[in-house]
Amino acid sequence: MFSDRFDQLVQALRILPSVGPKSAQRMALHLIMKNKEGAVGLAHALNEATSYIHECSICHSLTEDEVCNICVSHERDDQILCLVESPADVMAIEQSGSFRGKYHVLGGHLSPLDGIGPDEIGIPYLLQRLSGGNVKEVILATNATVEGQATAHYIVEAAKHLPVQMTRIAQGVPQGGELEYVDSHTLSQAVHNRMRMK
Amino acid sequence: MFSDRFDQLVQALRILPSVGPKSAQRMALHLIMKNKEGAVGLAHALNEATSYIHECSICHSLTEDEVCNICVSHERDDQILCLVESPADVMAIEQSGSFRGKYHVLGGHLSPLDGIGPDEIGIPYLLQRLSGGNVKEVILATNATVEGQATAHYIVEAAKHLPVQMTRIAQGVPQGGELEYVDSHTLSQAVHNRMRMK
Repeated sequence: MFSDRFDQLVQALRILPSVGPKSAQRMALHLIMKNKEGAVGLAHALNEATSYIHECSICHSLTEDEVCNICVSHERDDQILCLVESPADVMAIEQSGSFRGKYHVLGGHLSPLDGIGPDEIGIPYLLQRLSGGNVKEVILATNATVEGQATAHYIVEAAKHLPVQMTRIAQGVPQGGELEYVDSHTLSQAVHNRMRMK
Repeated sequence: MFSDRFDQLVQALRILPSVGPKSAQRMALHLIMKNKEGAVGLAHALNEATSYIHECSICHSLTEDEVCNICVSHERDDQILCLVESPADVMAIEQSGSFRGKYHVLGGHLSPLDGIGPDEIGIPYLLQRLSGGNVKEVILATNATVEGQATAHYIVEAAKHLPVQMTRIAQGVPQGGELEYVDSHTLSQAVHNRMRMK
């Protein structure tokens, strides 16, 4: 609209998740009109982050070092491993403050139709990691989707021969959930997995 | 969370309009995990845009050159001037395809409480531009807010001595508007400004 570089900025902003053409225009105008300094800072942060952040060589979460700060920490229990699909899940569980062990990030889930098999999500490396003998329990915290469930089941089967306990995060009614709005599959799971109170 | 540079990127993304902490985290993860190339491209586009885009010396819209492509165009009627608050408004009117004249961008509206008076939004420069004698009509297209209305009225008064016709964009029921959901002020304006059909 105003110039080629303006249009290029609008296009470039469209790569952000849930940013459509109208939002991208609004963002571009905001940056140029009201916050040029912030825009330069954002460009710098993007260049720094893309240059220095990469996968942790142990758990495959994100880090700037060879090994991430969770893997390297002596304050975390390395006998219990939380297995998740992506670094976003590590972040969510860390923010819940409910886990003090270590992580293993698959980087996806099994999806044969998309050509994603056990090798693509590093199952051989996971089994090798579990064979070390240090890990006593794996919490399978893949998503509660069909693919996440299938991936969890596959891993239980694949690790059958190893002396490692496998648990799955609980499924049921979420905190604050009103029963009349909870889907029937979740409700049926919640009834099936009911817990004794007395 | 993962590293300092990750946190810095999340912080930097928060300058974007309507991006809160959760969205910024999601964007940062998306860029680093799924689209590093796009992130580098965005950084480049930000640096280019902030370096080269500035105000047009005539209309105060945005351009990379001394004068913007609308001001420089011989195909646009320079006897009719559309006066708006910001370059975003120029973009909106251009996208409606309803105007073939030239623009004048105030860069804001009168707001005495915030210390924004006639000088801050360049009223002297506007009057000087209108004194040239070339402009026959000014369409006052400031926002239909209290401040926008006040600014339009102020300009009409300030330019009283000049032989220039002043018009205001129409106010009424928007296209597709169902009367029962239109606010009463708009409805009262629409009745007051009714147009003869026969």
